[in-house]
Amino acid sequence: MANEFELIRRHFARPTPAALLGPGDDCALLVPAAGSVLAVTTDMLVEGTHFLPDTDPCALGWKTLAVSLSDLAAMGARPRWVLLAGSFPAADEPWIAQFAAGLFACAGSHAVDVVGGDMTRGPRNLCLTAIGEVPADTALRRDRALPGDDIWLSGPTGLAALGLAHLQERVHLGEALRGTCLAALQRPLPRVELGIRLRDLAHAAIDVSDGLLADLGHVVEQSRAGAEISLDLLPPLPTGVEPLLARRCQLAGGDDYELLFTAAVSRRDDLVALAGELQLPLCRCGRILPAPVGEIRVVDASGRRVHFDDRGFDHFA
Amino acid sequence: MANEFELIRRHFARPTPAALLGPGDDCALLVPAAGSVLAVTTDMLVEGTHFLPDTDPCALGWKTLAVSLSDLAAMGARPRWVLLAGSFPAADEPWIAQFAAGLFACAGSHAVDVVGGDMTRGPRNLCLTAIGEVPADTALRRDRALPGDDIWLSGPTGLAALGLAHLQERVHLGEALRGTCLAALQRPLPRVELGIRLRDLAHAAIDVSDGLLADLGHVVEQSRAGAEISLDLLPPLPTGVEPLLARRCQLAGGDDYELLFTAAVSRRDDLVALAGELQLPLCRCGRILPAPVGEIRVVDASGRRVHFDDRGFDHFA
Repeated sequence: MANEFELIRRHFARPTPAALLGPGDDCALLVPAAGSVLAVTTDMLVEGTHFLPDTDPCALGWKTLAVSLSDLAAMGARPRWVLLAGSFPAADEPWIAQFAAGLFACAGSHAVDVVGGDMTRGPRNLCLTAIGEVPADTALRRDRALPGDDIWLSGPTGLAALGLAHLQERVHLGEALRGTCLAALQRPLPRVELGIRLRDLAHAAIDVSDGLLADLGHVVEQSRAGAEISLDLLPPLPTGVEPLLARRCQLAGGDDYELLFTAAVSRRDDLVALAGELQLPLCRCGRILPAPVGEIRVVDASGRRVHFDDRGFDHFA
Repeated sequence: MANEFELIRRHFARPTPAALLGPGDDCALLVPAAGSVLAVTTDMLVEGTHFLPDTDPCALGWKTLAVSLSDLAAMGARPRWVLLAGSFPAADEPWIAQFAAGLFACAGSHAVDVVGGDMTRGPRNLCLTAIGEVPADTALRRDRALPGDDIWLSGPTGLAALGLAHLQERVHLGEALRGTCLAALQRPLPRVELGIRLRDLAHAAIDVSDGLLADLGHVVEQSRAGAEISLDLLPPLPTGVEPLLARRCQLAGGDDYELLFTAAVSRRDDLVALAGELQLPLCRCGRILPAPVGEIRVVDASGRRVHFDDRGFDHFA
């Protein structure tokens, strides 16, 4: 097997037009745009925890970058640069080559430069750090939801969780739904352009990575507010799946990477127009309440409260 | 065991005065200084590859940050912000607490804010990303060494490798030397202040993480030059160790995190004065040659060439 420098040169060293200095030195050198604030996030994906050992490496390369770009999108930041650190078993070069192909496919679709990284031997583990830019004072934060705000979703949630359940043989999906769900699980689409457009429209935003209720929970806790989700406003559940499982996935399944955001009622028309422009099924599904702080009421079509305990995914629970 | 959010809150959430927004949102928000360039680096430390399973977690916390600050130092950058991603086995909270104590001890000694991160379950793996600032056009790069430059080291190399050999029972060190070598291995001191002062003095710089000859090799390859190292100019070998082993560690042992830099002959007096001011044993140990490109000649006191093949550490060799 080639040495680490050769592996990096072969698979990860590509032109970095957005960097002053790319891979190959002790650090990358980057020139931030004047007047912008940096948004920075790091995510670690571990084999056996975040992905199965037989996951397609190309899809995984895409997803490794996509989940971090989704964090940038949730702040309204434009992605600029990423760094990738990875540990791999020996003799893993074909796997690495496919992983890199997926990673650069995602990078190319968002004009992001891979400016640096690290490569070492060990159990498969991928750590991606992404850096984006957002004009000062326009970043979307979790703690800025206001009572009376509408709650919006950029698309359906729960599809990735259904895809995972299918792979784990806990459910059998028909062919069409399987394709949709596996795509949601394996090639999530970070809502980068939406995040940028929401800078002036939304009050608060988060990406749905742990589950709809869990992530909305972060918003209401940090905003010192409560929330109500109306089941009949949520995107329709997929057919051909046991409805209770589908609902559980919708409310508590992780890994979707849709944006959840809040906006004033007065912005409904703007958001409907934006949905058409970006061709995204933006969905208004609830509202922010003044109290009780941290509590989320899930209600049915008649406004009756539905109890639902399973909030989402936690790595150490 | 506490959940991941609680673990982060307990052990990693500390005030972040240098950040606009610290941990707890999708991204951290950072305001770069006007006119500065960002230096960014990421390093992954894997149990079994970079550290032994019984390594003291507090020392490891220190070292995890120190090795990345050393990369910033090698660019002449002032460290500002870091992000930490880690995977840990279940029920690891006492280990995590000690690790965090060591990490924040190092962060505090350099006024660095831990602005974000990720925590997940898996084999122990730590990935640290560090961001520093350097005024435009003053960053120290590997590819700027000039023929005729002196080669300097910020201190002795090989001590960390001797410490590791002692822990692996390949050598037995006496008490005093053992203490020095284990400190070099476990609590390296990143040469941050030296790197900043070298912005106007040095032509090229790198930190010695893979070994003196390996890292000098990166400098000469990227600078399209050659080099000569004079054994009699290097720091004296430690006594009480078999001299050939000591020499091998000095030239090829990794993990020292001293700076290797090149500077014009005309700056010798400035560098001797700087050594006194910073209380560092700066050592002039060779020179950059116009050719052969990429070749390092090691010579003895009489100028005779000494053959030495073992260049350093490579994770996939």
